[in-house]
Amino acid sequence: MRRISLTRVFSFSAAHRLNSDALSHEENKQIFDKCNNYYGHGHDYSVEVTVQGTPDSETGMLIPLPQLDTAVTEFLTTLEHKHLDLEAPYFKDKISTGENIVRYLWNELDKRLPAGKLFHIRLWETNNNYFDIGKDA
Amino acid sequence: MRRISLTRVFSFSAAHRLNSDALSHEENKQIFDKCNNYYGHGHDYSVEVTVQGTPDSETGMLIPLPQLDTAVTEFLTTLEHKHLDLEAPYFKDKISTGENIVRYLWNELDKRLPAGKLFHIRLWETNNNYFDIGKDA
Amino acid sequence: MRRISLTRVFSFSAAHRLNSDALSHEENKQIFDKCNNYYGHGHDYSVEVTVQGTPDSETGMLIPLPQLDTAVTEFLTTLEHKHLDLEAPYFKDKISTGENIVRYLWNELDKRLPAGKLFHIRLWETNNNYFDIGKDA
Amino acid sequence: MRRISLTRVFSFSAAHRLNSDALSHEENKQIFDKCNNYYGHGHDYSVEVTVQGTPDSETGMLIPLPQLDTAVTEFLTTLEHKHLDLEAPYFKDKISTGENIVRYLWNELDKRLPAGKLFHIRLWETNNNYFDIGKDA
Amino acid sequence: MRRISLTRVFSFSAAHRLNSDALSHEENKQIFDKCNNYYGHGHDYSVEVTVQGTPDSETGMLIPLPQLDTAVTEFLTTLEHKHLDLEAPYFKDKISTGENIVRYLWNELDKRLPAGKLFHIRLWETNNNYFDIGKDA
Amino acid sequence: MRRISLTRVFSFSAAHRLNSDALSHEENKQIFDKCNNYYGHGHDYSVEVTVQGTPDSETGMLIPLPQLDTAVTEFLTTLEHKHLDLEAPYFKDKISTGENIVRYLWNELDKRLPAGKLFHIRLWETNNNYFDIGKDA
Repeated sequence: MRRISLTRVFSFSAAHRLNSDALSHEENKQIFDKCNNYYGHGHDYSVEVTVQGTPDSETGMLIPLPQLDTAVTEFLTTLEHKHLDLEAPYFKDKISTGENIVRYLWNELDKRLPAGKLFHIRLWETNNNYFDIGKDA
Repeated sequence: MRRISLTRVFSFSAAHRLNSDALSHEENKQIFDKCNNYYGHGHDYSVEVTVQGTPDSETGMLIPLPQLDTAVTEFLTTLEHKHLDLEAPYFKDKISTGENIVRYLWNELDKRLPAGKLFHIRLWETNNNYFDIGKDA
Repeated sequence: MRRISLTRVFSFSAAHRLNSDALSHEENKQIFDKCNNYYGHGHDYSVEVTVQGTPDSETGMLIPLPQLDTAVTEFLTTLEHKHLDLEAPYFKDKISTGENIVRYLWNELDKRLPAGKLFHIRLWETNNNYFDIGKDA
Repeated sequence: MRRISLTRVFSFSAAHRLNSDALSHEENKQIFDKCNNYYGHGHDYSVEVTVQGTPDSETGMLIPLPQLDTAVTEFLTTLEHKHLDLEAPYFKDKISTGENIVRYLWNELDKRLPAGKLFHIRLWETNNNYFDIGKDA
Repeated sequence: MRRISLTRVFSFSAAHRLNSDALSHEENKQIFDKCNNYYGHGHDYSVEVTVQGTPDSETGMLIPLPQLDTAVTEFLTTLEHKHLDLEAPYFKDKISTGENIVRYLWNELDKRLPAGKLFHIRLWETNNNYFDIGKDA
Repeated sequence: MRRISLTRVFSFSAAHRLNSDALSHEENKQIFDKCNNYYGHGHDYSVEVTVQGTPDSETGMLIPLPQLDTAVTEFLTTLEHKHLDLEAPYFKDKISTGENIVRYLWNELDKRLPAGKLFHIRLWETNNNYFDIGKDA
């Protein structure tokens, strides 16, 4: 029987700045370009969370939607309208690139969902770029 | 030579209700939430149908588009502006969750397309959630 | 000083059927086409609510967003995941066309918002059609 | 002869915070809600700039596109990947609400475009809300 | 009673080239830029057609949808997958700018719809620019 | 450690015609339908380019964005506002179907990006169909 997955779309708005303390001012400017702006900038992030498995034979669903929504929303609330670098401890020593944010989302959501259900996460940073983790990415 | 796939986007509007006769009124309310509303509700479903294979060396195409469009459209017409639970026999004894609808689409489209061509189906139920079947889902 | 307006986008999913008791079965079929389907069908409606006026000099806002969101959401909840014809009394004797739904939205939201603030409503029935009321429509 | 308008879509990403020095901490929290977050947050703003007039009889265009694009892009660059409150002088004593940003855009673009051409500006703050100025707004 | 309008979204794909015989090669290059490419280029045009009036008291509709769809589709078929400059006689002596195309659409659709119903047309040339005619444009 | 990918969205507008010299006029009409129109037609193509690998431990990025953007943009410029069949040598003896265009994009971008980074390309021909190459397609 073919496998089926369910994806829900969430969103949050946040500020951040791409800057590495290990790099010189000039290197930071060159590598991160306008994303290195001293006072930060921001995005409306969109998050597609995919769970996979065998639908429950009685309900026909992979996971009760309120359970999925609650788990994801409770976590995303900690980032909503925040400055990622200054307010999310994970980014104290990591640059808040999309690559690192999507890994952070994976780590946190995987803990909050039933074991083995989380299958893929896509993080849209703007309408023109996104980051994937899971599956074969 | 790398494999190539072609995806076409289709759509249909339908009404449905999530309810299991095997569950009590309270259980149905708890599990299906507002989707359990007695008189039903509806969606504008969007369906992305993907075929894969080796493009024909003469036409450069995986499948003649009219053949694909006709096969899919003829089937989706049976759901267009219908009440899924009351008018599609498949849902007589199955709940019309996205998971079950996307499996139903797979079964029906796989029969109507050349053997081995159907590769993936994505069903958007709303702009905020979708269901996948095929590939590794 | 030029006038400014603020628009917020809301959504709800519902079922309905276009049918007039004053018309014969054949006339209903001809005029409403597939929207006349006996068991109903459904849509994911999107509602753009526009308020206009002079921004408050202290807050820089036309209306406190929680006030706007609460007023609109409280009303749309009465339609969310409902069958419009069977559960919204307004459509007991009116056909639930987009034209009539958008007028109903105007009447109800205008009552719930500060006098003179409501300026325009756009109701998307599907991704391919929408209805406007207000301004010069 | 009917009037015609041309609209171009631009975008920029920025951080900001909604906070009024004239209000108490509690009032700021209540009015601006999560937008009052101390460290700021951010958005991907989208800007639709509309010019109106009579198309040039020779070129068939309202305005040469490079002229429009240059004028708008040169200005938006000053906001791109910036913190609005800390880096755009206009917001030194004004709260960076969408209402105030769209007025600021009008003032600045009207100066940079041929007299009388600017007709309307729509500023999307997120995919769920936008602000209009011009026409009758 | 407030006026209501209905808008339907249509689309067609076509090739064209912006070039004026009255201008020198260099002037054409400067004014039309990459749109002056000798062999032409193309777009997926999207057309939003708005009709306005008083909904019929019996049907609750401004116009029977099949009537609107037939009128618009019959005309757009003459442009579908065509080269505008070489195949649409209107552009024999007019440059196929968005401004001129939207005026052409107005002239043709106004003839095909019941008198006084056509209210506004928006023509999207790409996802980043559109042209309006009607209302106050 | 889970693999991560980054995708950037690009676009170009072009004209083309689907026609095979090896087929008769009637066969071309039947297979390519309206895409066989003698004078060509056009599209606004959208290209999603995905790179995969291990993010750099210092920058947190899979690839410096300016490097990716420059490589892709430099190539897409050769197609921008062009007639694919008449101006891109690759299509001299190949039909410019989406299947062939996406393979051409793969060949060209794979050469221009660091070895092994290119992971997937999705080419949208219109809003209703797209072509994939890479991964398992």
